[in-house]
Amino acid sequence: MNDQEGLAIAIEEAKTSYKEGGVPIGAALVSRDGKLLGRGHNMRVQSGSAIHHGETSALYNSGRLPASAYKGATMFTTLSPCDMCTGACILYGIGRVVIGENKTFLGGEAYLKQRGVEVAVLENKECQDLMELFIKEKPEIWNEDIGEEERVYSKEAK
Amino acid sequence: MNDQEGLAIAIEEAKTSYKEGGVPIGAALVSRDGKLLGRGHNMRVQSGSAIHHGETSALYNSGRLPASAYKGATMFTTLSPCDMCTGACILYGIGRVVIGENKTFLGGEAYLKQRGVEVAVLENKECQDLMELFIKEKPEIWNEDIGEEERVYSKEAK
Repeated sequence: MNDQEGLAIAIEEAKTSYKEGGVPIGAALVSRDGKLLGRGHNMRVQSGSAIHHGETSALYNSGRLPASAYKGATMFTTLSPCDMCTGACILYGIGRVVIGENKTFLGGEAYLKQRGVEVAVLENKECQDLMELFIKEKPEIWNEDIGEEERVYSKEAK
Repeated sequence: MNDQEGLAIAIEEAKTSYKEGGVPIGAALVSRDGKLLGRGHNMRVQSGSAIHHGETSALYNSGRLPASAYKGATMFTTLSPCDMCTGACILYGIGRVVIGENKTFLGGEAYLKQRGVEVAVLENKECQDLMELFIKEKPEIWNEDIGEEERVYSKEAK
C-alpha cells in the first residue's frame, strides 16, 4: 500500500467521525508488509473517551499484538499527532508516521524524529479543510480534545 | 489527599488487575483541590486493549473533561510511565506525576521534566514487588505491554 492509499483509509475514518458528530481525525496502522492491522477515529464525542484519538483508536482496533507486529509499521493519520499519540507510536516502535496535514495543529513531529521515527507530511487539502470546518463549527470540543482552554482556532487566527 | 493516599488508590487498582490476571499497574488522577477524577488499571488482558495502561485508564475513567479540570492535577501511578502515558499526561497539562517505583521499568520521567511536569518517585516496595512477581510469572505479556521483543525481566537481569 502506498502513502496515498494508506492516508485514504485514515481520511475515510475521519469523515465517518465527522458524520457521527465527532472530531474528524482518523488513522490506519499498516504493517511492514502492507497489511492493514487496524483503523479508527477519534471517539471523544461518540464514546466519551479522552484517550481514543485517531491513532490510539487504530492501535486499539488492532488489538493485542506482539512487539514484532509493529516493527517497521506505518501509522497513517489525517492530522499531526498530539503528544499522547506521539508517545503511543514511540512505545510500540512504529517506524514511520505519515501525516495528512499539520497546518491546523502541529503535534509531536520533532520528538518523533528525535526518537528515530520517520515522519512524512503529505499536506493534504481534504484533511485540512475538514479540520478547519470542524474547528469553526465546534471549537469547544476541539479545545477539549487537545487539552487547551482558550486557544482560538480559525483561518484568520492561525 | 497526600502522596501516600493517592498512591494507595493506584496500588489498589494494580492489585485488582493482578487478581484479574492482568498487568498489575494502576493509576489515579486527582485534581488540584484533591478530588479523585478517575482511577483505573491496565486492561491489556482484561479487554484486549493496547492503549489502556494504568494512566490512560485513569484518564479514560475520568471521562470527558475541559482542559481546566486537568490543570494542576496529579497523576498517581504505580510504575514509571511509558512513552504513551507520558505523552497523555503532557497532552492534558497534568502538573505532577507521582510514581510508585521505577526499578522494574524506567519510562519517560526525563521527558516529563523537560516538558515542565513535576515528577516524584516514592520508591514503594509493594509496587516493585508486585511488578517483579508479574514479570517473573508472565514475561511475554509484560514484553507485549511495553512493545519489547526479547527483553528479559528478572531480578537477576536488572
